[in-house]
Amino acid sequence: MTLSSLQHALARFAVERDWEQFHTPKNLAMALAGESGELLEIFQWLTPEQSAQVMQDDERAVQVREEMADVLAYLLRLADVLDVDLERALVEKIEKNRGKYPVHLARGSAVKYTQLGG
Amino acid sequence: MTLSSLQHALARFAVERDWEQFHTPKNLAMALAGESGELLEIFQWLTPEQSAQVMQDDERAVQVREEMADVLAYLLRLADVLDVDLERALVEKIEKNRGKYPVHLARGSAVKYTQLGG
Amino acid sequence: MTLSSLQHALARFAVERDWEQFHTPKNLAMALAGESGELLEIFQWLTPEQSAQVMQDDERAVQVREEMADVLAYLLRLADVLDVDLERALVEKIEKNRGKYPVHLARGSAVKYTQLGG
Amino acid sequence: MTLSSLQHALARFAVERDWEQFHTPKNLAMALAGESGELLEIFQWLTPEQSAQVMQDDERAVQVREEMADVLAYLLRLADVLDVDLERALVEKIEKNRGKYPVHLARGSAVKYTQLGG
Repeated sequence: MTLSSLQHALARFAVERDWEQFHTPKNLAMALAGESGELLEIFQWLTPEQSAQVMQDDERAVQVREEMADVLAYLLRLADVLDVDLERALVEKIEKNRGKYPVHLARGSAVKYTQLGG
Repeated sequence: MTLSSLQHALARFAVERDWEQFHTPKNLAMALAGESGELLEIFQWLTPEQSAQVMQDDERAVQVREEMADVLAYLLRLADVLDVDLERALVEKIEKNRGKYPVHLARGSAVKYTQLGG
Repeated sequence: MTLSSLQHALARFAVERDWEQFHTPKNLAMALAGESGELLEIFQWLTPEQSAQVMQDDERAVQVREEMADVLAYLLRLADVLDVDLERALVEKIEKNRGKYPVHLARGSAVKYTQLGG
Repeated sequence: MTLSSLQHALARFAVERDWEQFHTPKNLAMALAGESGELLEIFQWLTPEQSAQVMQDDERAVQVREEMADVLAYLLRLADVLDVDLERALVEKIEKNRGKYPVHLARGSAVKYTQLGG
């Protein structure tokens, strides 16, 4: 499925339940952050190594997939109500980041770009 | 572009900079939540009505698009390293939610499904 | 109770359960953000007006108090393991904000200080 | 300083700037989550070991203290507008958690209490 058809499915789901009244950009940004917080809770006590094995536990794997689906759902709803083309926005952001994080400076470093020397 | 090709672009971006070492699921979940938090900050002092007009301010519109792109980027990276099919996960979640929020009970109500009477 | 005695109670709680191993600053920052996300979920579909009445619903009032207690708990644990004096940090931040948001410029405006004209 | 006197200082700061109109519980919960997200961003690419050394970098130490102060500020404002006694809420939560996480079951385990066997 394309993002666009997923957006249509989500919009229809909301319309059928008369939930559009709740889906202001402010509320959707909150819901998106709330779901990101639930994803965070799955990982918070895991070591980085354990986090890389998280999908090998069936119960946790289901949780991870569902929370990620929830994040995507609210991100797509937000993009829909704000009329943002998400895929284009990401392509442009990647281009912009190429300039901010040139390979020869950023290589192996997690330092934020403003601190990268010349 | 498809989500899959965006994922490839993001993976290549990370590989070129030797950033895969930082992209554990734990760290990516943190980055995703951090970007959701930045999106939240754009909306926090706006009324719901102002939030619906946010794209009419050019400067804010750019911020909103960029933060949404960042959220999508980390969500896609996380799906990539965990080998989660995001689109399928969302389709399945929508199906599950049809059962949890039947139209005749959920109509016009933002009550969480566990509180919906039978 | 003082913050300091609450910190001692929380530290003892962790020591008794051998949980100090999980309480790295990174993990505590995640737990703090996760609890903030749960607080967010209580308010996400409420209008600003409904949010001001949230404590009149007994069940929600309990949830709000508990989530706020959780946020404070992880903030105090984080301050403890990082040896940060939270009260002093806040007093200094208020002082700093007096300079950033002078009354005559900030009055009635939620604009971030970097955008406040001279 | 006590939490109560910090709350008074924060309330006065808001009143002087006519910011009470922005300080609905909904907005304050958003601001709290936004600041937690900024704290998260400081730690997101650090290993657990690096996170334990974060205060040895002067610049980062300042950031950590300021973000923690911001989290406390919004938590105190929220408690003030909702008339929640934060210290009492935390004392009660610790008592409740003693029952949920008995030492003999919870020892050395980060498993959420619902999964703790009997």
